[in-house]
Amino acid sequence: MKVKFRIAVLLLCFISKSTFGDTIDNEVDQCSLPENLVKEIESYAPTVNKIINETVNGLYKGTTWQELATFVDKFGPRLSGSQVLESAIDYMLDKLVKHGLENVHGEEAVLPHWVRGKESATLLQPRVKDIAMLGLGYSVGTPTGGITALAIVLKSFDELRQRRNEVPGKIVVYNQDFVSYEETVIYRSRGASEAAKFGAVAVLIRSITPVSIYSPHTGMMTYQPNITKIPAACITIEDAAMLNRMADRGETIMINIRMEAQSLPAVKSRNTIAEIIGAENPEKVVVVSGHLDSWDVGQGAMDDGGGAFISWNSLRILKALNLRPRRTIRAILWTGEEIGIVGAHQYIQSHKADRQNLQFVMESDIGTFTPIGLAFTGSKEAQCILKKIMNLLEPINATMVRNPNEGPDITEWVDSGVPGASLWNDNGKYFWYHHSNGDTMSVEDPHALDLCAALFAAVSYVMAQLSVDLPHNN
Amino acid sequence: MKVKFRIAVLLLCFISKSTFGDTIDNEVDQCSLPENLVKEIESYAPTVNKIINETVNGLYKGTTWQELATFVDKFGPRLSGSQVLESAIDYMLDKLVKHGLENVHGEEAVLPHWVRGKESATLLQPRVKDIAMLGLGYSVGTPTGGITALAIVLKSFDELRQRRNEVPGKIVVYNQDFVSYEETVIYRSRGASEAAKFGAVAVLIRSITPVSIYSPHTGMMTYQPNITKIPAACITIEDAAMLNRMADRGETIMINIRMEAQSLPAVKSRNTIAEIIGAENPEKVVVVSGHLDSWDVGQGAMDDGGGAFISWNSLRILKALNLRPRRTIRAILWTGEEIGIVGAHQYIQSHKADRQNLQFVMESDIGTFTPIGLAFTGSKEAQCILKKIMNLLEPINATMVRNPNEGPDITEWVDSGVPGASLWNDNGKYFWYHHSNGDTMSVEDPHALDLCAALFAAVSYVMAQLSVDLPHNN
Repeated sequence: MKVKFRIAVLLLCFISKSTFGDTIDNEVDQCSLPENLVKEIESYAPTVNKIINETVNGLYKGTTWQELATFVDKFGPRLSGSQVLESAIDYMLDKLVKHGLENVHGEEAVLPHWVRGKESATLLQPRVKDIAMLGLGYSVGTPTGGITALAIVLKSFDELRQRRNEVPGKIVVYNQDFVSYEETVIYRSRGASEAAKFGAVAVLIRSITPVSIYSPHTGMMTYQPNITKIPAACITIEDAAMLNRMADRGETIMINIRMEAQSLPAVKSRNTIAEIIGAENPEKVVVVSGHLDSWDVGQGAMDDGGGAFISWNSLRILKALNLRPRRTIRAILWTGEEIGIVGAHQYIQSHKADRQNLQFVMESDIGTFTPIGLAFTGSKEAQCILKKIMNLLEPINATMVRNPNEGPDITEWVDSGVPGASLWNDNGKYFWYHHSNGDTMSVEDPHALDLCAALFAAVSYVMAQLSVDLPHNN
Repeated sequence: MKVKFRIAVLLLCFISKSTFGDTIDNEVDQCSLPENLVKEIESYAPTVNKIINETVNGLYKGTTWQELATFVDKFGPRLSGSQVLESAIDYMLDKLVKHGLENVHGEEAVLPHWVRGKESATLLQPRVKDIAMLGLGYSVGTPTGGITALAIVLKSFDELRQRRNEVPGKIVVYNQDFVSYEETVIYRSRGASEAAKFGAVAVLIRSITPVSIYSPHTGMMTYQPNITKIPAACITIEDAAMLNRMADRGETIMINIRMEAQSLPAVKSRNTIAEIIGAENPEKVVVVSGHLDSWDVGQGAMDDGGGAFISWNSLRILKALNLRPRRTIRAILWTGEEIGIVGAHQYIQSHKADRQNLQFVMESDIGTFTPIGLAFTGSKEAQCILKKIMNLLEPINATMVRNPNEGPDITEWVDSGVPGASLWNDNGKYFWYHHSNGDTMSVEDPHALDLCAALFAAVSYVMAQLSVDLPHNN
């Protein structure tokens, strides 16, 4: 997932769950929903309980995990532009049809096609040592034979500016402290151009994670216009710290970096769609979503196989329970998220005309660990209704609402006023595995996935069944 | 470190610190040390406080970490038999002399010389995927081109026996649950021969660790006599689990393993010795120790750079403080521990005649995190004296004593009746990094190392200064 760099998000990340709960609950205490709407929402309790029971204890217990494991073991990582992503999309389309979902189809999206190729980094001085690394998405490669240069190790962009005269011709190594993903990821996204401005020939960036067992993490970077494009890769916390110690001792550090990375012509991909068509207002839509693409390391089980699979499995469960609400529930398995939220952007732009018919949009892309509730953005009134609905999830203890939404693929909708929410889950270890070879099925827990699927199924059903349309902000 | 497989150790590992404390304290309550000995021990409090203050807050604050970082960054991992280990020993001998320690010398030990060479494992069916792996010490290599075979995935030796008819010609993958290091490591140490008995052609063993970010761990294995030697390597938790899932689905698993591993002729190495020679009874000795060799991955900072460096730095600090006790304090930086406690065995055998002069032997090889106290083996009387001495460490909250000793290099002494103890420290994450590329300086904390060095310096000083000899068990 690509997290938006909002100060609000950062602040919210540091406020405890109970604090959130209190804040929102106080606001909701001030809600004055019509009594009949309150009664209507409460009347959905038996249905929600049935959804929860079937998902968590019944016929569908463990199925999200099983289906996800089968999928990620079969395809492995699914980078935008790759044939394996397209094969994975074909597989999902077939599966959606087989489970009787409706209006199953792919909607074309054109994706950038960056490929990693072979890559390596080697410390040559003060001693010879392989440096584990992962090139960053959109990075250029090196010339054949690589780039061999002295390195300068820096802790911050401030230090880069202060020591700008030492930078020309050097490999810049960033050993920035990890504060939070949102604050620290700027070294990955902007580090190459910031260093290139002062004449650096390449950058090696400490991976954006709080914990490492010598594990490099990849991710997307961006070149600023009119700045020389230099190769960019992430290295482990351990090697960044070692190079920093060597530099502090005044040792000469020389490194060779070889990267075959390149950007190939754009390729066609597809957002994957399936629906339960609404019984009364099929044109009105609730969206549940996650992205099918991943980085080209690990299995993409956490980022974002889990999000995609709780979305499709929640529809499968509602269909199997013969629960057809008034409005349409649409699962969208986005494509091309990691490479810049590309699939979602094209889908949302091409569906502008239908935007006013969106009742509620949901996404899961920051983990499918034990769910706590939803992170919401929308009007006060919509939030009051959502909070009331979330009370129905008391049986799985996932009733909380906080602000704002953090779902990258639905952000464009939410920014345009559509009420939207992302899954809020107990994801404290998310960035240990994020964009690394550690993002595998071993991170996912069957029961937690059941709980997440139950939440998505229940909320999407009630939102789609509700007698009133949620007000948009714009 | 190589942990002995004693049930007692296993049980102790699961009993909480406070439970230990209570048990031992009750025993000590029954101690009846002579009043003058109690007073003598209490009289060392000012000296112990001075040692602690100088180590933790004074001139030597942070020096163990700085010296260790300089060492492991300079040499990296130091496998038995390698030239880098011998260079590291030369460096240490030079450093010991420079800091004015006495009787500095190397004592020859002959080490086995196993080399890893290039190695790889590749899943060929049901899809092509690189499998991260680390060959195990003493493993044979594969023929050129490797071994390509179908795999069978097993959870236990019991299942191996039950499915013995399926094993011939296969690669056995062990996906055993991690219970504890001591219980689970038998799959690494014995897994190859157990599988070879039934006709397996190679084994891939889930790494012996509770936590993984796609990190394989290495270590030593042993071939049983008269059983075909087959290649053995560890793979990550993640891949072992994936292969297990594939097998559970009935998928055909085919793997290629290539290992250039081989055993070369034995080479000469050295145990590294330095002393503060005793003022009154130089022939009587207190030993502090850790091992200088490591596996050939990571930096060997935790296993066992930390143990070796708190040992030598504790002598340096005592020397600088001009504290020369009655008996000799000897630092021994063992060689060849990882490959079978080889250096310690040869040293202890060649010093048999002096054994009765050993007052107390100490070792650190299960981490140098925040110290809690010592894990002791010896007579009741010696334990009573130790417990009284440990009370002097109240200023650093490291007063606890538990049983038994867990130091692998001193085990042969302790088994022969010499009172001995290993550092008991807050090492709950030790096996996350153990024998992996994650064993680097990033695991070590400057303050924790200071505390450990203070403990080793204080206890070795008081033991060497004590007016009475500790009774041996035999």
